Amino acid sequence: MKLLRVGTAGNERPALLAADGTLRDLSGLVADIDGDLLADEFALDRIRAAADTGVLPALDAAGQRVGPPVARIGKVVCIGLNYHDHAAETGAAIPAEPVVFFKAADTVVGPNDTVLVPRRSVKTDWEVELAIVIGRTARYVADDEDPLAYVAGYAVSHDVSEREFQIERGGTWDKGKNCETFNPLGPWLVTRDEVPDPQALSLRLWVNGELKQNGSTAAQIFPVAEVVRYVSQFMTLYPGDIINTGTPAGVAMGQPEPKPYLRAGDVVELEIEGLGRQRQELKDA
Amino acid sequence: MKLLRVGTAGNERPALLAADGTLRDLSGLVADIDGDLLADEFALDRIRAAADTGVLPALDAAGQRVGPPVARIGKVVCIGLNYHDHAAETGAAIPAEPVVFFKAADTVVGPNDTVLVPRRSVKTDWEVELAIVIGRTARYVADDEDPLAYVAGYAVSHDVSEREFQIERGGTWDKGKNCETFNPLGPWLVTRDEVPDPQALSLRLWVNGELKQNGSTAAQIFPVAEVVRYVSQFMTLYPGDIINTGTPAGVAMGQPEPKPYLRAGDVVELEIEGLGRQRQELKDA
Repeated sequence: MKLLRVGTAGNERPALLAADGTLRDLSGLVADIDGDLLADEFALDRIRAAADTGVLPALDAAGQRVGPPVARIGKVVCIGLNYHDHAAETGAAIPAEPVVFFKAADTVVGPNDTVLVPRRSVKTDWEVELAIVIGRTARYVADDEDPLAYVAGYAVSHDVSEREFQIERGGTWDKGKNCETFNPLGPWLVTRDEVPDPQALSLRLWVNGELKQNGSTAAQIFPVAEVVRYVSQFMTLYPGDIINTGTPAGVAMGQPEPKPYLRAGDVVELEIEGLGRQRQELKDA
Repeated sequence: MKLLRVGTAGNERPALLAADGTLRDLSGLVADIDGDLLADEFALDRIRAAADTGVLPALDAAGQRVGPPVARIGKVVCIGLNYHDHAAETGAAIPAEPVVFFKAADTVVGPNDTVLVPRRSVKTDWEVELAIVIGRTARYVADDEDPLAYVAGYAVSHDVSEREFQIERGGTWDKGKNCETFNPLGPWLVTRDEVPDPQALSLRLWVNGELKQNGSTAAQIFPVAEVVRYVSQFMTLYPGDIINTGTPAGVAMGQPEPKPYLRAGDVVELEIEGLGRQRQELKDA
């Protein structure tokens, strides 16, 4: 299923993108798309059954905003340097184990919302990423378990990053990862059953129409299953938590000087195979 | 005012520690103590007025758990190496600007709840810290503004840390800061008007009755006001967000070998002048 949330910020209603391409209103069936829903197999089955029988009312989304596909996100865990080519372009060594940092859930916005270039920013950069949406509480996932059983689904994520804040201002990367609007998510939460192999997805990103990133999750150093297993050894993952799994090569930081960092007026588009497409215009904060 | 939340985890009710030392039930007056309440001057004034007139019903807290004093925390921003003596004991240089990292809000537990030593942990460490509770949205706080105007109040915070995860496992500090139960908070949210000088508070921490940390917020490299101003240049702070402002010297990592890291059965107590006292027993996760 492709689940989404449609409406103004804070007033989104849950919806389904049906197989025939129409939008269906889920608000008569479930309160919202959040961790509680994702942890509730019966509720998800009710949506599936209603979709199959065609009883869901149509939703006229013309001109309506699409919000993030998950409400009340608890935390956004991020994996850094998770593609061989991106580690190389940033001059970093291939990590021996996953690099973990955080974005606050309040950085999450809709897939087509404005992204703000922070004040005094000179190095605002792009990163297309596959996001994992957690569906079951994952705590010390054992080696003989299937880590994907804890995954509700996947989404397109834009891990917007300010490189000067991230790298040159002291401390951890978090300083450059948590600016307002820095995590467009969606348009859809695509449930796991529709993504049989999360390691075979193409990811692409364009700036002002020019292709900048063109990778595949096949090139992840630590695949989705390993990321879930690994992170769960250090922290508990709850339904509705997000894991951004890293970006392939092609970010501004990896280009020759003068590096083409983002400015107000730029337009970024990003897409992951089967997970939909985002488009953001940049403005000054 | 000293605001707190009393009851089993997830079912706490809002309460007030009255000037006469009795607990008063606020559940007839406000829904909970959270960002919405802290941003609502009228609601806080209603509590003050009710406290003054003595109309609040008594709350029998005998045997009842105290929860974290704030519900629905959005994010927990942490400042690292913010005391001269602690930077020295860890062998780190004095930072030129604040070091920022994150704890997820789901690590927050009550002040006397069990703290879990993570599986495979060999370096679980303690850190007593002054926590700032944000009361108004702080976004690019200007140099001529008073950053303390964005502060609802203060609380005792225990920034439990796994040093091997934090420092020796690659990536940012977040990996050792986000284990389950790693942020006891409270007992009280003490409103700003009762803390005239946040840079004159003594902080102490004991392990199994032995004094380990004994500092003062006077020794902070970046004082509370500067921390709020600085962080707001990189991210937006919302009502109900927490900032842990760093720990003074005396952590296990700073001791001679064999360093006395925490184990199941250990008891940690911590206290900040005027903000109350915590006590946690450690158990294995």
